[in-house]
Amino acid sequence: MQISARNQLKGKVTSVNLGSVMAEVVIALPDGQEIVSAITRNSAESLNLKAGDEVLAIVKSTEVMIGKQ
Amino acid sequence: MQISARNQLKGKVTSVNLGSVMAEVVIALPDGQEIVSAITRNSAESLNLKAGDEVLAIVKSTEVMIGKQ
Amino acid sequence: MQISARNQLKGKVTSVNLGSVMAEVVIALPDGQEIVSAITRNSAESLNLKAGDEVLAIVKSTEVMIGKQ
Amino acid sequence: MQISARNQLKGKVTSVNLGSVMAEVVIALPDGQEIVSAITRNSAESLNLKAGDEVLAIVKSTEVMIGKQ
Amino acid sequence: MQISARNQLKGKVTSVNLGSVMAEVVIALPDGQEIVSAITRNSAESLNLKAGDEVLAIVKSTEVMIGKQ
Amino acid sequence: MQISARNQLKGKVTSVNLGSVMAEVVIALPDGQEIVSAITRNSAESLNLKAGDEVLAIVKSTEVMIGKQ
Repeated sequence: MQISARNQLKGKVTSVNLGSVMAEVVIALPDGQEIVSAITRNSAESLNLKAGDEVLAIVKSTEVMIGKQ
Repeated sequence: MQISARNQLKGKVTSVNLGSVMAEVVIALPDGQEIVSAITRNSAESLNLKAGDEVLAIVKSTEVMIGKQ
Repeated sequence: MQISARNQLKGKVTSVNLGSVMAEVVIALPDGQEIVSAITRNSAESLNLKAGDEVLAIVKSTEVMIGKQ
Repeated sequence: MQISARNQLKGKVTSVNLGSVMAEVVIALPDGQEIVSAITRNSAESLNLKAGDEVLAIVKSTEVMIGKQ
Repeated sequence: MQISARNQLKGKVTSVNLGSVMAEVVIALPDGQEIVSAITRNSAESLNLKAGDEVLAIVKSTEVMIGKQ
Repeated sequence: MQISARNQLKGKVTSVNLGSVMAEVVIALPDGQEIVSAITRNSAESLNLKAGDEVLAIVKSTEVMIGKQ
């Protein structure tokens, strides 16, 4: 399946922190920058996410803001 | 000012496409991956965004999904 | 690939309206309810979306509000 | 009141899971498909959401992605 | 109908700019601060939005970031 | 740094509620209206948010819906 979300960045999970409803997942990009994702705990468990997993961080383009000095 | 958005990825603008209300901005990350941002045309003009600008792509962590093979 | 977005509703595209930067896509669910999606024109063209296509409408759970009488 | 969100799908709450800050609400559509919503616990309590409630799942069109085989 | 979105700010429309797919609506709050909304043109037309309208600017709490000096 | 998010409302934090993964922050605007923000606990702690802080509530315009009577 191809999805419309324009941003699909390859990275590796470095940590998964499970809360009661939500989970926080940290992903390292190849260039060393980090991405943090907050998804439901049920999603994290359904994907069986754990440190070391190769994943995509997926973001719809309408969710990306820009900062400039 | 420090902002709560956890994801602030450094990159360089490679193109800006202005529509009537919205604008599409493409940003290259240092590792070669690309990020696409859809913001209002007024925002793009207010920041005077143009190819070559060093910018941050800013994403709230609740907007980041995860894909896994 | 499995993605973390919890909502992946099966439906059929009924119309695609292309603007300069954005596109509006209307999807009919099997129960007759409609879903409207606003994505970038580039995404719509990349997926070659057209009326009659069988698609999934994908929504992250943090984007779903609830209304109650 | 009429709201601009284009997607207002009728369904019935099947479960409510309250965390410390967030809550997860599952809604069944008439066609059997399910929608998961992550809202604040305070919102869930303010609406007094419980299984069996007839509700609307409300999603802004800019939050809807599309997947295609 | 009561909706789960925690932020429903009263204001007055000061301008509506219609594009081909999207529309930009500017709303003035009572304290003089402004809110900009990007919705589909179809939504703006369906609500018949025009300058002077008393409206609510509605935002899900998961969409609100915080900036601090 | 200037950011593209069009909505940057000045207010004062009135409460911070920390959960395991997420946090809920309530902000009072000068006109007395309230804004609720759900961010990650790590973000709230990183900004050292506490009641009385002068902050900006930042919202991307594509996240703002409109309600009209």
